[in-house]
Amino acid sequence: MQMLKVALLGAGRIGQVHAKSMTATSASRLVAVADVNAQAAQALAAQIGAEARSVEDILADASIDAVLIATSTDTHSDLITRATAAGKAVLCEKPVDLSLERALKTLAAVEANGRPVMIGFNRRFDPNFAALKAAFDGGEIGAGELLSITSFDPAPPPVSYVKVSGGLFRDMMIHDFDMACWMFGGAPAKVTAHGAALVAPEIGAAGDVDTAAVTMVWADGRIAVIKNSRRAGYGYDQRIEVLGSKGLLSARNVLENTVEKITTAGAVSAKPLHFFLERYMRAYEVEWSAFLEAVTTGATMPVTLREGVAALACAEAATRSLHSGETVAITPDMLG
Amino acid sequence: MQMLKVALLGAGRIGQVHAKSMTATSASRLVAVADVNAQAAQALAAQIGAEARSVEDILADASIDAVLIATSTDTHSDLITRATAAGKAVLCEKPVDLSLERALKTLAAVEANGRPVMIGFNRRFDPNFAALKAAFDGGEIGAGELLSITSFDPAPPPVSYVKVSGGLFRDMMIHDFDMACWMFGGAPAKVTAHGAALVAPEIGAAGDVDTAAVTMVWADGRIAVIKNSRRAGYGYDQRIEVLGSKGLLSARNVLENTVEKITTAGAVSAKPLHFFLERYMRAYEVEWSAFLEAVTTGATMPVTLREGVAALACAEAATRSLHSGETVAITPDMLG
Amino acid sequence: MQMLKVALLGAGRIGQVHAKSMTATSASRLVAVADVNAQAAQALAAQIGAEARSVEDILADASIDAVLIATSTDTHSDLITRATAAGKAVLCEKPVDLSLERALKTLAAVEANGRPVMIGFNRRFDPNFAALKAAFDGGEIGAGELLSITSFDPAPPPVSYVKVSGGLFRDMMIHDFDMACWMFGGAPAKVTAHGAALVAPEIGAAGDVDTAAVTMVWADGRIAVIKNSRRAGYGYDQRIEVLGSKGLLSARNVLENTVEKITTAGAVSAKPLHFFLERYMRAYEVEWSAFLEAVTTGATMPVTLREGVAALACAEAATRSLHSGETVAITPDMLG
Amino acid sequence: MQMLKVALLGAGRIGQVHAKSMTATSASRLVAVADVNAQAAQALAAQIGAEARSVEDILADASIDAVLIATSTDTHSDLITRATAAGKAVLCEKPVDLSLERALKTLAAVEANGRPVMIGFNRRFDPNFAALKAAFDGGEIGAGELLSITSFDPAPPPVSYVKVSGGLFRDMMIHDFDMACWMFGGAPAKVTAHGAALVAPEIGAAGDVDTAAVTMVWADGRIAVIKNSRRAGYGYDQRIEVLGSKGLLSARNVLENTVEKITTAGAVSAKPLHFFLERYMRAYEVEWSAFLEAVTTGATMPVTLREGVAALACAEAATRSLHSGETVAITPDMLG
Repeated sequence: MQMLKVALLGAGRIGQVHAKSMTATSASRLVAVADVNAQAAQALAAQIGAEARSVEDILADASIDAVLIATSTDTHSDLITRATAAGKAVLCEKPVDLSLERALKTLAAVEANGRPVMIGFNRRFDPNFAALKAAFDGGEIGAGELLSITSFDPAPPPVSYVKVSGGLFRDMMIHDFDMACWMFGGAPAKVTAHGAALVAPEIGAAGDVDTAAVTMVWADGRIAVIKNSRRAGYGYDQRIEVLGSKGLLSARNVLENTVEKITTAGAVSAKPLHFFLERYMRAYEVEWSAFLEAVTTGATMPVTLREGVAALACAEAATRSLHSGETVAITPDMLG
Repeated sequence: MQMLKVALLGAGRIGQVHAKSMTATSASRLVAVADVNAQAAQALAAQIGAEARSVEDILADASIDAVLIATSTDTHSDLITRATAAGKAVLCEKPVDLSLERALKTLAAVEANGRPVMIGFNRRFDPNFAALKAAFDGGEIGAGELLSITSFDPAPPPVSYVKVSGGLFRDMMIHDFDMACWMFGGAPAKVTAHGAALVAPEIGAAGDVDTAAVTMVWADGRIAVIKNSRRAGYGYDQRIEVLGSKGLLSARNVLENTVEKITTAGAVSAKPLHFFLERYMRAYEVEWSAFLEAVTTGATMPVTLREGVAALACAEAATRSLHSGETVAITPDMLG
Repeated sequence: MQMLKVALLGAGRIGQVHAKSMTATSASRLVAVADVNAQAAQALAAQIGAEARSVEDILADASIDAVLIATSTDTHSDLITRATAAGKAVLCEKPVDLSLERALKTLAAVEANGRPVMIGFNRRFDPNFAALKAAFDGGEIGAGELLSITSFDPAPPPVSYVKVSGGLFRDMMIHDFDMACWMFGGAPAKVTAHGAALVAPEIGAAGDVDTAAVTMVWADGRIAVIKNSRRAGYGYDQRIEVLGSKGLLSARNVLENTVEKITTAGAVSAKPLHFFLERYMRAYEVEWSAFLEAVTTGATMPVTLREGVAALACAEAATRSLHSGETVAITPDMLG
Repeated sequence: MQMLKVALLGAGRIGQVHAKSMTATSASRLVAVADVNAQAAQALAAQIGAEARSVEDILADASIDAVLIATSTDTHSDLITRATAAGKAVLCEKPVDLSLERALKTLAAVEANGRPVMIGFNRRFDPNFAALKAAFDGGEIGAGELLSITSFDPAPPPVSYVKVSGGLFRDMMIHDFDMACWMFGGAPAKVTAHGAALVAPEIGAAGDVDTAAVTMVWADGRIAVIKNSRRAGYGYDQRIEVLGSKGLLSARNVLENTVEKITTAGAVSAKPLHFFLERYMRAYEVEWSAFLEAVTTGATMPVTLREGVAALACAEAATRSLHSGETVAITPDMLG
């Protein structure tokens, strides 16, 4: 595989994660970093031996093949549109946008210019979930009927973050919406959401929930149930389970270690890995390699922009359902 | 504890289960069996050294302290009312009735005559679920927030049974409604149901579903999610999991044995116990002892008729929700 | 199957266990109990609706088909010989005797009179170990190579008991010797023992060990390793694991319940069942049924007296090895 | 921490493993590679951006701080001696030597010249075993009594390798000897070995065994049992379990993934990771960092040459025991 020259837009927390995971392959070389905070861009660039440059400069540089967008969500649509217009391949962090309307416009623009765009749903590349998906697609439990996703964060983010996050459904459960659509092959027909602020009253005061259960129903009757909490306390609880016509497949948590201690107090094993950095670092590496390979071979992106829009449509429907108390249909116009 | 003389009404499958589990204690003696099918009553009575008698005869016999009602569901309300009027203590199989309206009348009648009635929600007496409940009530994971119940049967019943069963919610999920109300201390404020006939089209043709997910929301925002399927294939899947403010409690399946085989094909462990007889025989024994003890001591029944009505109210709400596509409130008049 | 009339010799702890487990089947009726302590015999007999009688009386009663010997070990050989001479079928608790020499004489006597004798190695009838054995015999992991048995008691017995027990190898590891011979189809060629009194100095002062590891080697090179401790603290640790040419089979502990609690302190599961009563009650029931069936059908006993002697020969060799510091051969004359 | 300049002696399989794991830290820079096979040295050097140089040249280069010896075992003693004489810090792969006598001379030489030498027992740095050791040292199960190590390779090496390996005890079980001495704080008083060629007759023909059980007994009575097989079939089986006065600690296998599939055929989980590269890559990285830190700070090496000699003394004793059929004492002169 040829080596691609790539740039990173966004030098914040998730940008730094990507900068690190991008080094696991020699199929790309990270040559430039941009950030609205010039100091952050400088620091990260220095650390990885790249150059801090402006977004404009990067997009204008014909030698750069691809960009990874890890900026704040409200800039995603604009950067995807500009980067593809400049001929770059794009890997953009989730979610596509907070506004479904704007995301649909971005989808239209990208499909018009034909450049490849991938959305960074990292969990699809976790080796455990990938193994579950492969077994499911291989028919090992027959036809899927009932899917369950458990996804709990160890602790709630600051309320300041919650306020700009788009809410639990667009920021956190968006991963699970994608996982469900990925498992069951497309968007559901309808979505019902329930939730409350049981963990942090200030999240409730900010108009969001921190505990939620969402039911997705497909046109053929298949059902998915997603449970989210902003606080598991014991770590990052990330599980999937699917009942099929011939059996059950599940992916359990990854634990800190394999040690068990048995005393009169019981048998104590390790907790799940604490958070996404510990749990998904390998997934980020695989994600990046999968993107590079698709760019190089011209294959369909492993996670398309259209799929990113579908997950956002689910989040939009869930948000409406939570507020209205009614089940909300996912209509074709919501999927682009 | 004094030895109580008891009679069994109903000599069918579940009656035979009770006849067997009742022998585990010497605190009661099963002296009479009644059944509309006289031959069935005779056979069971002979087997256990009791007498086959008519219901009328049993209720008129002042030496009989208590009756266990294991007849068909449509006779429960009538028998509860008559037995308590005759001064008997009653343990009645779930559900109280298929009609919430009739169950509420029975509740009123029983509360008027003051005799003790227990509803046979056997799962509360499973040692695993009882241990989970004790840990939860002991505050080991703090305040409850998000409850999940997975309850899959190994294989669907004949459609002839489905037609008279009252449907999945009244017949099967009724157990899980009780479990949820038991865990969270009372009935929820609202219920949303989704379901489909994915396993057996004839169940769908009979107007019922075989795969369902129900969300219950309490007035304070706590949420429970129940998943049911009439067909797990691999056995009886019976799990509970509850997220609290300080951690997670779960009760896993009971497996056929503890053997593990590791070969190039992977690590193979045993399946869950096949069905309720294997899984809950011990629970039926504990249930019966708990009933006898409450009768003897005069303590509140471990599962009250009022609680049986609450579970039925949930089933009623779920049924309405499934048909209307809307969330249904549990109003005070539904709880008696 | 016809119902056998049986008597119980010995009304102590293990006699009471058997009296209880014998009630699980209707294939036998326990009609008489004998004990040197007449009061103990009376009490147990009253409890189960049998008669307290003398051993002589029982052996002289032609209507009694079989006896279960649960008296002190030093009486086993004598009672086996007398009971078989009186025409009874015999189930005798382990070990056959503390003296290999005397056990060999008993074996000769029994083989001369031809009556069926079974030795009560209850663990063979544990559903978990039985499932492991069936899988092993079914060739699921190919040919056996390396066997491991872990067998730890929760707490050491009183030193007064240790002094008359014949020592760890004859009293406790005798079970594991039988298990190893059962798994690998006959006695090993040699035995090496190591041990120490690490748990209770008074056990060391009494000339015994409380912690031991024994290696058994078969003529064809197969190896078994047995580990024993008189104190696990957390309960009764009973595990078997066997490596074969195609994989590994293991039987894990049976836990008190299936509940798991995950908090910041880790994931806590239940301990193993506390001791043999909890763990092996079902095994005692199956053992008794297996004995009755062999008596009725005339089939070979599920555990023969000859096998009981082989286990004792292993214990004898281990004891000699511990004291001499050398590996001890199991010679044909030790097996009868 | 300052960056150390280091050289790698040996560009074979294990040398390549180290070359890769050494890149995980920026605390060292691998500048030179030597190998008797010049082409192998060139290839590896090119790949990692280092220079292929002769051993002489490397040892004479004062700018090189440390060397990692990953050459064939028969060269270890010579290279350790020469490298330390040249003032280098040394990390040498296990075992120190095949000859205990020669290893003792090397120990004397190194202690005379005072340079730091570490032996590469990688398993101590596995995060799971390290967590077990930390819990044990922290007193979480009280005083250690009975240690069990299970260590099975997935498949036997070619017999050509076996012939030059020094045999199972010096080549494979050497890891477990070190683990046992590490856990129990020093060498045992005596060793008993049993073994056979059950997997590969050609290994037997070459005078070695492929299946073995070794018992180590410490002066105070503590016991360790090590089981080795050259063929587990299902992968790399690497487990440790230690019984203490207050409980049991165990480290289970690391599995390929967390997926479980339950069907009528049972519950299937993933196998253990296949071999040492998959299981211990992280351990090699941690090992290297631990070496660098000790070199930089002047702290005692995490695994001393003396400890490497002790493991070899155990292997020597086990070999003698296997051949003589007797227990072999570890005498002070064997430990240097």
